[in-house]
Amino acid sequence: MSILLNNHGYDNASWAEILGELLPEQPLYIYNQLDNETLDAIASEIEYAVIWNHPAGDLQRYPNLKGILLLGAGTEHIDQDNSVPDLPIVRLIDPEVLNDMALYTLYWVMDLHRQFSVYRQQQQQGLWQRHDIGQPRDFRVTVLGLGAVGKTVAQRLHNNGFTAQGWDRYPQQIDGISCYEGDEQLATALAETDVLVNCLPLTAGTRHFINDTRLQQLPEGAALINISRGEVIDDQALLKALDCQHVSRAVLDAFAIEPLPEQSPYWQHPQVDITPHMSGATYARSAARLIADNIRRIENGEAPFPLHQHPSRIAAAS
Amino acid sequence: MSILLNNHGYDNASWAEILGELLPEQPLYIYNQLDNETLDAIASEIEYAVIWNHPAGDLQRYPNLKGILLLGAGTEHIDQDNSVPDLPIVRLIDPEVLNDMALYTLYWVMDLHRQFSVYRQQQQQGLWQRHDIGQPRDFRVTVLGLGAVGKTVAQRLHNNGFTAQGWDRYPQQIDGISCYEGDEQLATALAETDVLVNCLPLTAGTRHFINDTRLQQLPEGAALINISRGEVIDDQALLKALDCQHVSRAVLDAFAIEPLPEQSPYWQHPQVDITPHMSGATYARSAARLIADNIRRIENGEAPFPLHQHPSRIAAAS
Repeated sequence: MSILLNNHGYDNASWAEILGELLPEQPLYIYNQLDNETLDAIASEIEYAVIWNHPAGDLQRYPNLKGILLLGAGTEHIDQDNSVPDLPIVRLIDPEVLNDMALYTLYWVMDLHRQFSVYRQQQQQGLWQRHDIGQPRDFRVTVLGLGAVGKTVAQRLHNNGFTAQGWDRYPQQIDGISCYEGDEQLATALAETDVLVNCLPLTAGTRHFINDTRLQQLPEGAALINISRGEVIDDQALLKALDCQHVSRAVLDAFAIEPLPEQSPYWQHPQVDITPHMSGATYARSAARLIADNIRRIENGEAPFPLHQHPSRIAAAS
Repeated sequence: MSILLNNHGYDNASWAEILGELLPEQPLYIYNQLDNETLDAIASEIEYAVIWNHPAGDLQRYPNLKGILLLGAGTEHIDQDNSVPDLPIVRLIDPEVLNDMALYTLYWVMDLHRQFSVYRQQQQQGLWQRHDIGQPRDFRVTVLGLGAVGKTVAQRLHNNGFTAQGWDRYPQQIDGISCYEGDEQLATALAETDVLVNCLPLTAGTRHFINDTRLQQLPEGAALINISRGEVIDDQALLKALDCQHVSRAVLDAFAIEPLPEQSPYWQHPQVDITPHMSGATYARSAARLIADNIRRIENGEAPFPLHQHPSRIAAAS
């Protein structure tokens, strides 16, 4: 049994090192170091593909594959590959990463609540002036998408005294947090929002989900934080809403194209804070352990987790 | 029975309004609206002085005073008045304010941990670059002074996954947090610090407590947050430590002179973040309720809280 590592376009060395330590008996090949001929020669040895942004169709090359292990939580890339073998696809959902995403969101919610961007400007101007604020419990944060990320984010905000509420397409429950569901309750959730946090995954149904209409359903002066995927937001609609001050501020960690192109109007927009997709810092050591554990589970005939259902299989089953 | 309100040099109107609602039977006089003659004429009516930064000696004017209620938690101003009548002095310790101070500190600890100031600079430069960080539990925050503020701050940091530890002159206990005590353990606490948070009250013993020697006991590159009083820090020592990068960054909410004078080198220092003494936002409504409750307690012969022991009485007793 061998492992193929293909963190396509990103760092492979540190993953290879740590996976090698955790699974010392198993040969590990790094895709990006091999030419096509070599790949074909070793293809039948490969039992596990540990991948991110792999070339579409490549997974069909390995006839003895037993499992596909993603190097991240998002599935939009593998969902677009229509030739994925019918094997377990395991997402990487690292509690440490969820925790970092929740702390990132909490930081920016506090930045908005306490108006720290105003105080930073005042420092540049040498201006000493306090601004009244409401109490945290009167500051309402609506989390869109209540998967593992959204739930962790909402809980962290709630635990720190903010009024968090959630919305998801399907019914969800989180202790102490109001959860809205489905299209008919979305406008209600949006109308009660000081900060909207996007945690929706990118799917065919969520592309440009945050559009003109939905931004207009937010109260005047609401803010937006995006820690999920750039394409969930209609950038033109957001820029328009920012320019007329309907949306007061946007904190963006994810973009339709990354790295964010030089000519993007977001870079210099005075109401926009940009971070380079770092809300969830991946700690290779902690994440590699989750992957190694899932490989062992499959070897032992146990179910790995969390499993992802590829859309082509859902389509085939219906 | 009447109340004298003297939020000297600050807003009195909103306090007067809310105290009037909470204690409708009691006449309320506003010091700053009365001349000396009028004050003398009503002096014997006054039973409660609700004050902040009152003129030294003024409290002797009221022969029937039953209680002195401070409009804040700090006592350095009243401690300097050597003619305070021997009556209960009640500090204003509002849980809402403690909570805000803890959230303020958490915000800046996260700002330092995640290097958000670097990302803000990168945005200005149009630069997309991620920086590796350690996990929150490996980020050590040392809280100096474990009174009500310090305890709340340390607990909030701990609850959000950071490694908080505390130091106080006297033994203290906080669940899940290592507490150091006394002069002999201070160097140990300082040596294990990524961020030092000053919560020490200003007393004769804490003026310039954070000096050259103690800053040198921090590890290279540690940061400082001051949410207590400016004079606890030796500004010249801090500026020197910042300039040689021994202290990487200082977040200052309190200053020896406030408003911070225009010519202060802090305003434009690239390693300094300044906020205008707003870490604990006072909510007049929530705070006025605590004051009204304490006035009622004294009226009913109960003990108000939290009581402050004036240094002149401690000196007299020893």
